[in-house]
Amino acid sequence: MRQKKYLLGESEIPTHFFNMQAVMPNKPLPILNPATREPLKAEDLYPIFCEECANQEFNTTDEWIPIPEELRQMYASYRCTPLVRAYDLEETLGTPAHIYFKNESVSPAGSHKLNSALAQAYYAKKQGITNVTTETGAGQWGGALSYAASKFGLECAVYMVKVSYEQKPYRKSIMQTFGAAITPSPSMSTRAGKDIITANPADNGSLGCAISEAIELAVTTPGCRYTLGSVLNHVCLHQSIIGLEAEKQMEMAGEYPDIVIACFGGGSNFSGIAYPFMRHNMKEGKKTRFIAAEPASCPKLTRGKFEYDFADEAGLTPLLPMYTLGHKFKPSSIHAGGLRYHGAGVILSQLMKDGFMEAVDIEQTESFKAGILFARTEGIIPAPESCHAIAATIAEALKCKETGEKKTILFNLSGHAFVDMAAYDQYISGQMQDYSVTDEELQKFISAADALNR
Amino acid sequence: MRQKKYLLGESEIPTHFFNMQAVMPNKPLPILNPATREPLKAEDLYPIFCEECANQEFNTTDEWIPIPEELRQMYASYRCTPLVRAYDLEETLGTPAHIYFKNESVSPAGSHKLNSALAQAYYAKKQGITNVTTETGAGQWGGALSYAASKFGLECAVYMVKVSYEQKPYRKSIMQTFGAAITPSPSMSTRAGKDIITANPADNGSLGCAISEAIELAVTTPGCRYTLGSVLNHVCLHQSIIGLEAEKQMEMAGEYPDIVIACFGGGSNFSGIAYPFMRHNMKEGKKTRFIAAEPASCPKLTRGKFEYDFADEAGLTPLLPMYTLGHKFKPSSIHAGGLRYHGAGVILSQLMKDGFMEAVDIEQTESFKAGILFARTEGIIPAPESCHAIAATIAEALKCKETGEKKTILFNLSGHAFVDMAAYDQYISGQMQDYSVTDEELQKFISAADALNR
Repeated sequence: MRQKKYLLGESEIPTHFFNMQAVMPNKPLPILNPATREPLKAEDLYPIFCEECANQEFNTTDEWIPIPEELRQMYASYRCTPLVRAYDLEETLGTPAHIYFKNESVSPAGSHKLNSALAQAYYAKKQGITNVTTETGAGQWGGALSYAASKFGLECAVYMVKVSYEQKPYRKSIMQTFGAAITPSPSMSTRAGKDIITANPADNGSLGCAISEAIELAVTTPGCRYTLGSVLNHVCLHQSIIGLEAEKQMEMAGEYPDIVIACFGGGSNFSGIAYPFMRHNMKEGKKTRFIAAEPASCPKLTRGKFEYDFADEAGLTPLLPMYTLGHKFKPSSIHAGGLRYHGAGVILSQLMKDGFMEAVDIEQTESFKAGILFARTEGIIPAPESCHAIAATIAEALKCKETGEKKTILFNLSGHAFVDMAAYDQYISGQMQDYSVTDEELQKFISAADALNR
Repeated sequence: MRQKKYLLGESEIPTHFFNMQAVMPNKPLPILNPATREPLKAEDLYPIFCEECANQEFNTTDEWIPIPEELRQMYASYRCTPLVRAYDLEETLGTPAHIYFKNESVSPAGSHKLNSALAQAYYAKKQGITNVTTETGAGQWGGALSYAASKFGLECAVYMVKVSYEQKPYRKSIMQTFGAAITPSPSMSTRAGKDIITANPADNGSLGCAISEAIELAVTTPGCRYTLGSVLNHVCLHQSIIGLEAEKQMEMAGEYPDIVIACFGGGSNFSGIAYPFMRHNMKEGKKTRFIAAEPASCPKLTRGKFEYDFADEAGLTPLLPMYTLGHKFKPSSIHAGGLRYHGAGVILSQLMKDGFMEAVDIEQTESFKAGILFARTEGIIPAPESCHAIAATIAEALKCKETGEKKTILFNLSGHAFVDMAAYDQYISGQMQDYSVTDEELQKFISAADALNR
């Protein structure tokens, strides 16, 4: 019988996170206080994030950061995740390429997000924090944090964009099942929310507003800290366990990837699968290609600009050096909610600038076409975000078919779509559309960020 | 690190199905032609089911039936499934019992149903069948068959009860994503459907009608066969791979179950986890208890009667000797759609009668209370059906807490609830109700079946 799945036992769960910041040749530019333009230090973030996460954010020296045993034990409920050889997809495409995927959809929360949620909840608990808070749009991160908080006995409050709260009741129910308190945002529970409701009682909410509410709750509530599910260095650090496991599993399969692919929103699942392999490019001259698959409607890597910008729409955060479409850019309402973000993480942006990775943009309908082919061949209905990685994988596999090259392609299946079937329904019934964005439109929003860089 | 998951590689996927009919001391009574009262033979079922499945239905001699290599290869996309020690549930309950569960929710279709769907699709394909059909209510079986048909290149037509088609669009989308054609039933595509629509154009459909339409399609379409997801002997046979894997995994854990628990609709997931262990009770005098957890609103095992009855509401099928509430019994609209069936499988009914297993009934709200505790401790949101098994497990674990006994309990987690979150929402918001059924009501429906036994 040909082997499909490469499994690792619990004892093989990584003992250390891999810290890309310690290895990359050019360190990221500093994060700036927008008022003073002074570089921020870890201590500046202590009121918002728990201390260990803030310290990790700025750690440019330690290549390996130990994973505490209690946290490894929590990972054991779903890790190590399987590495799978996609034979049936290969055969259907008729490609000589070997396609592997790392299956992060087996996590209790349905996506890779839990890897960082558990870490952030663990460090918060260790510090004596009692409450964590965050915002959520599509709900993947909110669901993961709710579960992680429940496992570590923390109270969890999630501000959910009002329109998502009403349109995605199942995501809300998942978070509530895990015991979290969900508040539609804008709400009357914060100054930021009150101001918005007072100005417009019918406001439907936005991720920017939900972030403001969650941060306000964190800084005004004793024993409460804010958490974030992507973009930041410490989040990408936690995700490195994906690639570290995959490295061992590829070895079990007797192969090494020529190409590594992941979808790209803020960069957390991309970092997770890519960093551990990328270090061999840096250290040993390996030639693996790393491809970020972003939505055509939110093309920060392929068409954005590398400069300082705010991480949030409202402009409340520090200034981050990143590939950005401008923090006021409003991505079209594609179903891949996790990819609707204007900027790329700081480390990732530097790696992109330095040529260690590349990016492609994928139209929404192309992504779902790929997702359905994957479902029918490999049996897992991929999350709308993951469909982008699959589309990019199929494109590379078909190039191999043309050239006859037998490349080894590894992609990250970041999550499943059981709670996103409305999106598939729209595609199958022929109702789905693509969203183009003109250079003029992009330039308008990028100009606003340009102003911050003068 | 304490071990949570016991994993088996693909080479450990069972090579044979275990056939309880060959081992049980009293064979089941014959299945009867309702018109002639003559026992049916396998050949009588060839026009409806594929031949291998019909043969397996009547096989009382071969204890082990080889699993073809091509089918094992298909199982490898998700099997072997993990056996998990529920440490956190144990600790939260404060029980000395050791609780293990077999996690069938990791299947691409989200439940154990795929084990038989793949087998039935494989045997159909081997026979040269080109189309398979079935009915579905809640949609778990329809989803599994759609996926299995897609893997073996068969056309798949699913008649979905009209009210479910409209109220459960996500299940429909899952089946369509896997490439099946879904028809709301009653439909104009069959004589049976036309008659019902003509009589009542607003008819919302029923499982009975959908069965009639699917069977009619099968017997009137060249190269088409009907499939069923539970109750029948060959379906339970295919599910035996669950328990065969669990047997090896319990050995890896160094334990043997004192109690085995599964939820009970027609009996397929119960058979799967129970039969392989039960054979040791029969052959070697082991004393494991086997507990079927059925809904209080559909209590065929705890309050039904063992006698001949039809398998469908309309009375079109052969007569089966089984524990039944009467084929006209209409179960309340609990969320555990897979448990809303009036009868128990033929083998299972005989085993129940002979004292090899026992049953408990569980109220709907009790089942969801257990499901939420499980989600918060073990991280998986269980299907409404599986919640019944968890409630029964918790009851046994709490008995151990009282007596101080350190029993080993194994239950089957038949599926996850990502597509059933509306049910959790109803429970969390306090809107869920229980459904009692009086002895008088039950007697009314059972009497109808009594008439068939004179």
